[in-house]
Amino acid sequence: MIKVAVDAMGGDYAPAEMVAGAVQAVNANREISVLLVGQEPAVAEELKKHNFPAEQIQIVPATEIIETEEPPVNAIRKKKDSSIVVGMNLVKKKEADAFVSAGSSGAILVGGQVIVGRIKGVERPPLAPLIPTEKGASLLIDCGANVDARASHLVQFARMGSIYMEHVMGVKNPRVAIVNIGAEEEKGNALVKETFPLLKECRDINFIGSIEAREIPHGGADVIVCEAFVGNVILKLYEGVGATLISKVKSGMMVNLRSKIGALLVKPALKETLKSFDSSQYGGAPLLGLNGLVVKTHGNSKAKEVCNSILQCMAFKEQGINDKIRESLTAENQENKE
Amino acid sequence: MIKVAVDAMGGDYAPAEMVAGAVQAVNANREISVLLVGQEPAVAEELKKHNFPAEQIQIVPATEIIETEEPPVNAIRKKKDSSIVVGMNLVKKKEADAFVSAGSSGAILVGGQVIVGRIKGVERPPLAPLIPTEKGASLLIDCGANVDARASHLVQFARMGSIYMEHVMGVKNPRVAIVNIGAEEEKGNALVKETFPLLKECRDINFIGSIEAREIPHGGADVIVCEAFVGNVILKLYEGVGATLISKVKSGMMVNLRSKIGALLVKPALKETLKSFDSSQYGGAPLLGLNGLVVKTHGNSKAKEVCNSILQCMAFKEQGINDKIRESLTAENQENKE
Repeated sequence: MIKVAVDAMGGDYAPAEMVAGAVQAVNANREISVLLVGQEPAVAEELKKHNFPAEQIQIVPATEIIETEEPPVNAIRKKKDSSIVVGMNLVKKKEADAFVSAGSSGAILVGGQVIVGRIKGVERPPLAPLIPTEKGASLLIDCGANVDARASHLVQFARMGSIYMEHVMGVKNPRVAIVNIGAEEEKGNALVKETFPLLKECRDINFIGSIEAREIPHGGADVIVCEAFVGNVILKLYEGVGATLISKVKSGMMVNLRSKIGALLVKPALKETLKSFDSSQYGGAPLLGLNGLVVKTHGNSKAKEVCNSILQCMAFKEQGINDKIRESLTAENQENKE
Repeated sequence: MIKVAVDAMGGDYAPAEMVAGAVQAVNANREISVLLVGQEPAVAEELKKHNFPAEQIQIVPATEIIETEEPPVNAIRKKKDSSIVVGMNLVKKKEADAFVSAGSSGAILVGGQVIVGRIKGVERPPLAPLIPTEKGASLLIDCGANVDARASHLVQFARMGSIYMEHVMGVKNPRVAIVNIGAEEEKGNALVKETFPLLKECRDINFIGSIEAREIPHGGADVIVCEAFVGNVILKLYEGVGATLISKVKSGMMVNLRSKIGALLVKPALKETLKSFDSSQYGGAPLLGLNGLVVKTHGNSKAKEVCNSILQCMAFKEQGINDKIRESLTAENQENKE
């Protein structure tokens, strides 16, 4: 049995889609129990619309809501009865195994560190979304708040990312690469040049060297290591170029009668193909390296993504990811002492 | 009359497409004269295939070729008779106004600084490609070799980029933005936080603040300022995501008979729409801030892009871009003294 706390109030479509996602998850798996954290009347009202095994969903009241535009540190400190703070405290007190939220990224990153806390030895917890590629999905690590990271942080990102891809996503011996501006070892900025040889020395990961941004959509690596500023640019540009091109394709099909007829014929097949390039199928992004699991889903998450994020927590717990991260960090310390 | 030296030997399709592009340019405009730099027999052989006003094209012999995988500093130093070194020397000696090459980026960046030389006061010459957006094109500055740039460099990039967009591309009062991981002023890494207030103080540019990567394809700014590592990631991811999605769309259309018929009907209109998202229409990327003009075109450039790159040099010269850059830097010094 796994207990997942879900932020019922966070995200553009809360509470409706958050509640619907929770219902989908418990209906899909009898081993999941969801704690819906949020304003009781609103959440209860939404729950009434669905059928589900009553014993698998429970409401945990939280009266406040952290808005996305609030300064995160302040919000976490002051709004003690917000759905994010209450949800994270459930994880801290081991009353939940994981917390899933589509709310303020900043508050989730701060709350993860301040409330849930880091695994001993983890320098900075990275946010690691899965991004779609031609070959499936790759883990982009870090897209979080760790701008101006140091080389030692990136090495930990590589290790944690590799464990996640292997044991949660089932990728055997995942290929780990560092984002760079050329394929050669001597290329890069100061951070990459310092990190590259450290990654080469890691015995517990399958480091394949540099990856140029062009190769990311082709699935050139399973774990894509970078500091958060670059990771954020990659993640958001992925979405931006994708959305722009899809809208160009759609408008291109509507230009004249001939193309409109063609569009009708082409649409079902096209939709199916493009689905494989839709990131919502992978659920949310885990914030790795915490004493528990915190998952950030897109602000515009619908029920499907919320449900997938909850299901993802099962694999995380079943595979004992945090224990594996602890072991890996112990091994790292051993190596350093040798 | 403008004289453009063209590297006949650089690029995946050299010399054929380089020569064809030169021919297209002189046929399009009687005010252009091209110096084709490269191995004489091969270039002469290609020229025979075309019709053009003989007085507008001349071959300048260069026996050596710099390969893309050669270490650039070494190559520029040792291969004195390479097409890149000979072409750049033509610009240095004012025997040509500009040099266009699809060859080794590294060699072009090094050669630009070492042979052609920087305008007095320019700290680092940025490479500034145009990228397609929903609203036309934006200038991405810098995508060159200036990794780990300082704030003062970025301020110069903003100034030079603004001049280029206004006077070469005809964008009135171009919107200048800095790439950031959030829209708020307090967001960013150390470099962005240092640069942001400096850009705000620039009286000669229309600084609109931060731009998130997601907004770049939507045309959120005309001049997109960033240091080269991030710029390189943006440029290459743009190409990568674009190529992947287009190939997904194509394969999606070929799934079954119904969709194949649809594809036939949709294709002409779709092709036309996607053309607006094709970067080759804009020609190459200028290396700004040099005593002359150096333009880097894609390694896989075909005649059309080469021709557009040559035509682009005309606007650059006619508008006196380098004089405007000199004036802007003088104004900058004045401001600093005040």
